[in-house]
Amino acid sequence: MSFYVQTQIMQFAQALPLECGASLASYELAYETYGQLNESKSNAVLICHALNASHHVAGQYRGQNNSEGWWSNMIGPGKPVDTNRFFVIGVNNLGSCFGSTGPVHINPATQKPYGADFPVVTVEDWVDAQERLVTRLGIEKLLAVMGGSLGGMQVLAWSMRYPKRVRHAIVIASAPNLTAENIAFNEVARRAIVTDPDFHGGHYYEHGVVPKRGLRIARMIGHITYLSDDVMNTRFGRQLRRVAGNLESDSLAEQNYLYSTQEVEFQIESYLRHQGDKFAEYFDANTYLLITRALDYFDPAKAFEGRLSQAMACIEAKFLVISFTTDWRFSPSRSQELVKALLDNHRQVSYVNIDAPHGHDAFLLEDPQYLSVVRSYFKHL
Amino acid sequence: MSFYVQTQIMQFAQALPLECGASLASYELAYETYGQLNESKSNAVLICHALNASHHVAGQYRGQNNSEGWWSNMIGPGKPVDTNRFFVIGVNNLGSCFGSTGPVHINPATQKPYGADFPVVTVEDWVDAQERLVTRLGIEKLLAVMGGSLGGMQVLAWSMRYPKRVRHAIVIASAPNLTAENIAFNEVARRAIVTDPDFHGGHYYEHGVVPKRGLRIARMIGHITYLSDDVMNTRFGRQLRRVAGNLESDSLAEQNYLYSTQEVEFQIESYLRHQGDKFAEYFDANTYLLITRALDYFDPAKAFEGRLSQAMACIEAKFLVISFTTDWRFSPSRSQELVKALLDNHRQVSYVNIDAPHGHDAFLLEDPQYLSVVRSYFKHL
Repeated sequence: MSFYVQTQIMQFAQALPLECGASLASYELAYETYGQLNESKSNAVLICHALNASHHVAGQYRGQNNSEGWWSNMIGPGKPVDTNRFFVIGVNNLGSCFGSTGPVHINPATQKPYGADFPVVTVEDWVDAQERLVTRLGIEKLLAVMGGSLGGMQVLAWSMRYPKRVRHAIVIASAPNLTAENIAFNEVARRAIVTDPDFHGGHYYEHGVVPKRGLRIARMIGHITYLSDDVMNTRFGRQLRRVAGNLESDSLAEQNYLYSTQEVEFQIESYLRHQGDKFAEYFDANTYLLITRALDYFDPAKAFEGRLSQAMACIEAKFLVISFTTDWRFSPSRSQELVKALLDNHRQVSYVNIDAPHGHDAFLLEDPQYLSVVRSYFKHL
Repeated sequence: MSFYVQTQIMQFAQALPLECGASLASYELAYETYGQLNESKSNAVLICHALNASHHVAGQYRGQNNSEGWWSNMIGPGKPVDTNRFFVIGVNNLGSCFGSTGPVHINPATQKPYGADFPVVTVEDWVDAQERLVTRLGIEKLLAVMGGSLGGMQVLAWSMRYPKRVRHAIVIASAPNLTAENIAFNEVARRAIVTDPDFHGGHYYEHGVVPKRGLRIARMIGHITYLSDDVMNTRFGRQLRRVAGNLESDSLAEQNYLYSTQEVEFQIESYLRHQGDKFAEYFDANTYLLITRALDYFDPAKAFEGRLSQAMACIEAKFLVISFTTDWRFSPSRSQELVKALLDNHRQVSYVNIDAPHGHDAFLLEDPQYLSVVRSYFKHL
């Protein structure tokens, strides 16, 4: 079932005006494609990525073990989004650290890395950049735009900004904007990064350091919010981290505490530290700031005094909206706000609230009910 | 209604053996009392404090504005716990930074502050220390022990460790142990403190610095978990922080984003940063580590292979258990586990799940229904 893919880079010489008022004089986007564009160019599906993902959605890189794309259970030959039928595009967003123009790239104005000077990009800016890519690929109308979480916000923005160019919008585990609690978690993560002495005002590249302490904390906070309380209890509960010589047959009552405030005592601590350590090795801190801010800022109803139905009146696409019962980061009620606004506008919308234990993470996982909903939707396209 | 109080200090020369295996050769406890102990010494109510509180439960300090105790809406003359009838004791726990022996005190073994060498104390250790105070005050049997959150855990420990010395146990917004998610939040907060370069392995006093960055992050995380998603949306929502010249009459749509990753953009960010800054000024980092660890470790059912009903079989006290519908840190279902275990043992228990919007914080707030439940319970004592 595995197939090999290669990342491509597309250059854009025309300046991109941004919502913040600045513009990028030129930029490049990393992307991948899977499957074949048909002659009528009517089978293209664009995948928008979430916080820490990239354009590498499906397939794997030749000669690299464990290089499967982040949505490989969803996209590929014979998968719910079947690349034998559809031409699927994965694109990396501006400001990312995975190939598209971002803070680690050279600022033509200074000949140094952008760092913290990279402009604050928004979901709408990303969509504008993606639109140029799609156009250059010769696609006038996308069969579908699809994404989960922050990816779902891009799908919404596509359907409102380019209503005539999207046939189907698939919005998974997403929301019309962040709640105060969502923003709060993002802000704590950003403060952890920005107040790390190795951050150097965002110009740490020049100092040869990385604000790893802050990145670790940011990732640990994120991970807590991706999982449900229940799944954390099932997977980790109050299990102690077993140390050598602490036999598996020991009963819970026989396991002694270490009585330490700094050593790892519980499995959940070990898991979170590991996730934080891994993340700090590969993710760029400035990118983290930009992407969480794009999440905070997204709010299409803002220009309509908070009236989402008015904001979504321009939409022409048909929608599939999916939420997960235990997702407390983007709760089902937020998806239901989208559904209501679409119905207010008499748009065609299918909505499924999947009973899954995994919290927000569920949108990336192998849930049979979820995958079969998507499969069935795409089968009828 | 205001009344004045003074903090007292009681010295204990007899060594206190701790659960971790170490012992404190000597120690002192800061405490306050309100009301009069009656002749039969049968009207004493002990209040146990939660994470960042102290022995200063009620009343105020003469000549100090805004020095009301942290539970002044609950305890005082004419209050639900009426100090005209009851002799109320507030006690500061070992390891705290508010008067009782803790990391900021001099370690007799080194003649330097304990710092990170202060032994890891548990809820049970606190209760053992409190028991000596109560004994020295001449009280054989407490009319009631009462506490919220971590304070409620101390009430549980009292009722199990000294079953003959507690008539009534009032456990509010608490739990029989922490969930994996609770531990996870504590761990992130601890990592933020421990990895702050100003932490110096817990011996920052000698370096003349305080790990304020870490404390701020810890407090911000804490605050998010004290509030419900709903109350955060009601109080802050997506409101921008109004800047000078940004007229109050501006509509939401007219308010412009700053497009910044580091400046305060939303009210919720301003609130959290302010809470973090305040906390870092007065709270000791080593104390934060100790108290969150005491929370993590508390698990009376552990010695009974997780069987809470067995652990609670020794209890003789009558219970009042209170939870709050929107408390997701110590959810109502956790209180209901306590109620079930008490009923399994045929103990007398009253349970109320208060419909309050404020999340975990509700136990400190002026909710009429909540206060009247406590008032009514104490009226019949």
